[in-house]
Amino acid sequence: MNNEKISVAILGATGSVGQKFIELLSDHPWFEIIELAASDRSAGKKYSEAVNWIMTTPLKEKYKNMIVQKCEPELKAKVVFSALDSSVAGEIESTFAENGYIVISNARNHRFDSDVPLMIPEVNYDHLKLIRKQKHKGAIVTNPNCSTIGLTLALKPLYDNFGIDAVNVVTMQAVSGAGYPGLSSMDIYDNVIPFISGEEKKMESEPLKILGSAKDNSIENAAFKISAQCNRVAVIDGHTECVQVNLKSKTKPEEIINIWQNYKSIPQHLNLPTAPERPIVYFYEEKYPQPKLHRNIEKGMAVSIGRLREDPLFDFKFVIHSHNTVRGAAGGTILIAELMKAHGYLDNL
Amino acid sequence: MNNEKISVAILGATGSVGQKFIELLSDHPWFEIIELAASDRSAGKKYSEAVNWIMTTPLKEKYKNMIVQKCEPELKAKVVFSALDSSVAGEIESTFAENGYIVISNARNHRFDSDVPLMIPEVNYDHLKLIRKQKHKGAIVTNPNCSTIGLTLALKPLYDNFGIDAVNVVTMQAVSGAGYPGLSSMDIYDNVIPFISGEEKKMESEPLKILGSAKDNSIENAAFKISAQCNRVAVIDGHTECVQVNLKSKTKPEEIINIWQNYKSIPQHLNLPTAPERPIVYFYEEKYPQPKLHRNIEKGMAVSIGRLREDPLFDFKFVIHSHNTVRGAAGGTILIAELMKAHGYLDNL
Amino acid sequence: MNNEKISVAILGATGSVGQKFIELLSDHPWFEIIELAASDRSAGKKYSEAVNWIMTTPLKEKYKNMIVQKCEPELKAKVVFSALDSSVAGEIESTFAENGYIVISNARNHRFDSDVPLMIPEVNYDHLKLIRKQKHKGAIVTNPNCSTIGLTLALKPLYDNFGIDAVNVVTMQAVSGAGYPGLSSMDIYDNVIPFISGEEKKMESEPLKILGSAKDNSIENAAFKISAQCNRVAVIDGHTECVQVNLKSKTKPEEIINIWQNYKSIPQHLNLPTAPERPIVYFYEEKYPQPKLHRNIEKGMAVSIGRLREDPLFDFKFVIHSHNTVRGAAGGTILIAELMKAHGYLDNL
Amino acid sequence: MNNEKISVAILGATGSVGQKFIELLSDHPWFEIIELAASDRSAGKKYSEAVNWIMTTPLKEKYKNMIVQKCEPELKAKVVFSALDSSVAGEIESTFAENGYIVISNARNHRFDSDVPLMIPEVNYDHLKLIRKQKHKGAIVTNPNCSTIGLTLALKPLYDNFGIDAVNVVTMQAVSGAGYPGLSSMDIYDNVIPFISGEEKKMESEPLKILGSAKDNSIENAAFKISAQCNRVAVIDGHTECVQVNLKSKTKPEEIINIWQNYKSIPQHLNLPTAPERPIVYFYEEKYPQPKLHRNIEKGMAVSIGRLREDPLFDFKFVIHSHNTVRGAAGGTILIAELMKAHGYLDNL
Repeated sequence: MNNEKISVAILGATGSVGQKFIELLSDHPWFEIIELAASDRSAGKKYSEAVNWIMTTPLKEKYKNMIVQKCEPELKAKVVFSALDSSVAGEIESTFAENGYIVISNARNHRFDSDVPLMIPEVNYDHLKLIRKQKHKGAIVTNPNCSTIGLTLALKPLYDNFGIDAVNVVTMQAVSGAGYPGLSSMDIYDNVIPFISGEEKKMESEPLKILGSAKDNSIENAAFKISAQCNRVAVIDGHTECVQVNLKSKTKPEEIINIWQNYKSIPQHLNLPTAPERPIVYFYEEKYPQPKLHRNIEKGMAVSIGRLREDPLFDFKFVIHSHNTVRGAAGGTILIAELMKAHGYLDNL
Repeated sequence: MNNEKISVAILGATGSVGQKFIELLSDHPWFEIIELAASDRSAGKKYSEAVNWIMTTPLKEKYKNMIVQKCEPELKAKVVFSALDSSVAGEIESTFAENGYIVISNARNHRFDSDVPLMIPEVNYDHLKLIRKQKHKGAIVTNPNCSTIGLTLALKPLYDNFGIDAVNVVTMQAVSGAGYPGLSSMDIYDNVIPFISGEEKKMESEPLKILGSAKDNSIENAAFKISAQCNRVAVIDGHTECVQVNLKSKTKPEEIINIWQNYKSIPQHLNLPTAPERPIVYFYEEKYPQPKLHRNIEKGMAVSIGRLREDPLFDFKFVIHSHNTVRGAAGGTILIAELMKAHGYLDNL
Repeated sequence: MNNEKISVAILGATGSVGQKFIELLSDHPWFEIIELAASDRSAGKKYSEAVNWIMTTPLKEKYKNMIVQKCEPELKAKVVFSALDSSVAGEIESTFAENGYIVISNARNHRFDSDVPLMIPEVNYDHLKLIRKQKHKGAIVTNPNCSTIGLTLALKPLYDNFGIDAVNVVTMQAVSGAGYPGLSSMDIYDNVIPFISGEEKKMESEPLKILGSAKDNSIENAAFKISAQCNRVAVIDGHTECVQVNLKSKTKPEEIINIWQNYKSIPQHLNLPTAPERPIVYFYEEKYPQPKLHRNIEKGMAVSIGRLREDPLFDFKFVIHSHNTVRGAAGGTILIAELMKAHGYLDNL
Repeated sequence: MNNEKISVAILGATGSVGQKFIELLSDHPWFEIIELAASDRSAGKKYSEAVNWIMTTPLKEKYKNMIVQKCEPELKAKVVFSALDSSVAGEIESTFAENGYIVISNARNHRFDSDVPLMIPEVNYDHLKLIRKQKHKGAIVTNPNCSTIGLTLALKPLYDNFGIDAVNVVTMQAVSGAGYPGLSSMDIYDNVIPFISGEEKKMESEPLKILGSAKDNSIENAAFKISAQCNRVAVIDGHTECVQVNLKSKTKPEEIINIWQNYKSIPQHLNLPTAPERPIVYFYEEKYPQPKLHRNIEKGMAVSIGRLREDPLFDFKFVIHSHNTVRGAAGGTILIAELMKAHGYLDNL
């Protein structure tokens, strides 16, 4: 690996996920943002004038005067991170891929295309090879839904070691998951909203593809049932989930905790820049994990778990927490790009 | 029924539930608070000086100058509402009952005494007769835990019509459930705490006694399993619960909704002053019920339900909401007293 | 006064102030809403389908099936309450007035028209006569800004009894003042925003017109200076304001408190339905007033005051609080209509 | 300066300020915490068992097993940071100083002792010499109140360049300023509390000592008047203040902004480890500064300022913001220690 950074662009650079990409990539050792693209309304403006910057670290000088580009395949960077809204992401991402760009997307549109990997680098790094089947000149790789990622990362060691028969999950999700401006303060303050459009269906299907087996031309889904109930709560960042599981083989809590605590995967072995040292952090304190205390653990890239115990109806229940805009969106997507780079998918662009 | 009101006293009158009793009883047609009792630290002071009044309606003048009494069985009122902390409630309530007082308690201490009814007036009015077995001169009747009440009220028509095999519940509970001062603002603001001490065990056991059958000397519990996971969220009042059920006989969502919407019980037939006209209110809007919009429905005495749908793992799932300090504490306890009065249990004191 | 209610319509009926009008007028003894009007986007729909109802009391049945009208002067009701957004209110209100309608408006557009009264019924009931100078067939009367009303009501007795030389005010305003959806939860949760567009200018000018003298053709403004600094805080309803004053003649705190506590004006003498019994409520507790405890005092129509004390730089400082969507918007506007009715301005329409 | 770190101890190590000291000193280049002391209740326990750790970065391993000491002058470290509660700080700090310890305190007790410097290193570094007049073997130096520090830092360049005649300030203060557990969530959520005990008096007096001149034996206070009004708002960290000033000589906003932006003082010249590069950061955006966006600027050690404009009653008004537990407590106190070290006050202990 030489010292030259790979040029990248952000599609949908003015939205909240786009901003998080910029924040996380501003000192990245491998990638350099050279272009910021957004809707026609923003295109042509200086980025600092087009954006309502809501990150809590200030916008770096080097991005302020970048002129926002249109989301058209005339960008110089050949690797593009997509933070586009799902209302436009489908077509734009396809167009970029057809024109030879590598599109690594946080949008939901292509997640279930049979030849598109739905990636959590620790979990299904081997699904990457699927992109060789894509008929584009370029490629599309997708990141799962924010509430799926923490869950699936927590399930992976259980799936590998014991097999899974059923998963029941109830979420308490942060407002930042709804984008910006997202929820009105009048709606969510002092409130719980027990519904997030489309979210339950995503949680009931995405983990099955991610935990599935890469076959020649597609993924064979994992074969267990998931029930999800999704709630929005008055938390800024970080999704908390109450999880119950039935396993195929018997085990004890201590064994599960031990497996979680020692869990490492390819991103850790490769020492990828954004990879958490510990992808899973287990807490013994019965009131943990909590968004406020644990969302930033491992720079927001770990899933925190606690309260593993036996359950009257399922084998076990436990609580997980993960940062929805870092591991669950921009950070997770960057980790995919790092895995692709490490495995040679970004060479010779 | 003559026009004279029954004199009552409040034990634990300075705490948050005690205050709620005072607020709800201040214009009650049947009961008149004549004494306010609290800890030795408060006894002897004017109530307005002993209390840190946190209700959002002002303290009525007639209570301000009442001298706080000790929690000893020398009160003139023979009916006492107990809002005592569980650290002291057990013994004090027993002492009052032994001395001939009717104790209607919101504390958890006597809930599982075999001869003490654990009451939700709509659900198990017939359990009241159990108090005739008590060896006190007086009697103790208890109100369930705040998170149990809404759940059990929602389950009752299902239990009666279809039978229940299993219940899974995950709660998102308001801070007022922890009393005052309860949770530090630094702990719960922008946070979820996935643990409430003792709460899950209460939810997994109390509904079984309440839905049980009154036998000669005790209650025969209902025979199904419950799994509960309890979370504290940044909501002031109102508990939201995601519920899943397996039923003994088959049915369809429309049938369940129909049964819920038409549900009435003894408190409605007797037209008790605090009884909600509709104990169960069903909402078809998929984002309902919500604490902010629905906690005060039917003056805080109804359980709101929404999102009934089929579930991949259980037969059905749905969301319930109820006001934890009204239906779930003071209001529910007052309704028990009203039922007792209507059934003659408060005559000749 | 006969028993027939006056028919009224709401312009801008789907917004948050429009909804508050409907909530407050649903059982009004004098007025009956017969028409709901809104933007072309909503016109023609059933109200229940056009509105995202965010009030905490449920929408009454009688309004659900009303067909939303356009905001054009073809309404049957001759008295219209305007909750229109200021981007369109100016022209629409003029058109209605030209066509003979009585427009009582919460919008800012006509507040400083020289022949338009800017009304707080307790403060400047005599300004109403100004409408006789209006060249419309109908009339326009306006309600002040939400943060102005509480302040001016608190200042009125000081102005009358001692004269005012200077007023300094710093506000902490609720999110509901920004309409719906208003502020993003991501912007205001765990935050203070020290800027509200246009608000400081309103607060520095409106009280001077309201406290001014009605001359033949216009108002002669009160002659003192006001400095305002306006902040948005994470409160749902209720504006809190730290106020400092210099008075023209000397006085003592006790005298001011006494005057405030005994303050009554025309709406109280006329016993108008929406008039608070006590327009000003003074609290001696040093931590009062507070939004959560006091916004609903006198059904949201009073200004609460506390902490009156001498100041190192001004004569006195104190804290005021008032409900921004009741006294500060819909409730205040309805009180104007009641005053107009009581004084014969709504006869023979 | 050799490479050996100076050993320090924390008094009051289990409280929220004590925890912040530990968090900020855990990798300090000059100081090494060797002892943690707290109340008798905690003494003798492992720190991890004595503390309810509420910082958002995890407690470092090296502190977990430290045995908590009593707050008695038998500690090995000769430099002690005091995070003691004011109910006990006065006496304990005196005892330590009498026994030869250098006490650098965040408590209010000794702030107005005539021979005790009340320090903001940028503002009054020359007051340090006052400790040579102390009759202790050791010394006491104090850090101002959290709401004073941001204000005084913002005023210093105005005081030096133009002179100050009067200062008016209204604060909106974070809950963390009240310590832990501090405010009940039921009191401050959806609320403003317009009173903080003792706070206004501190703000009206402390800046005058800090901006005063060091004379032979004491400080001659600055001679202008301050009026303060202090409010608690629903913000976790960061105090916002609306400030008005009268200056002795005329100037223009641009000149003031220019002076603020270029302000540097001794801690910057000495490049002290905790010194912010920019002690004052000015924002031109009219909705800035805000707690959520700016509290962590310069690692929480800067005061953010915005909205400087002319005022109808004073010469100018503006908004400031600073982090109350970093610059306003532990961080500010550490900066004092660094200044003392750099100036030789910590040699030969």
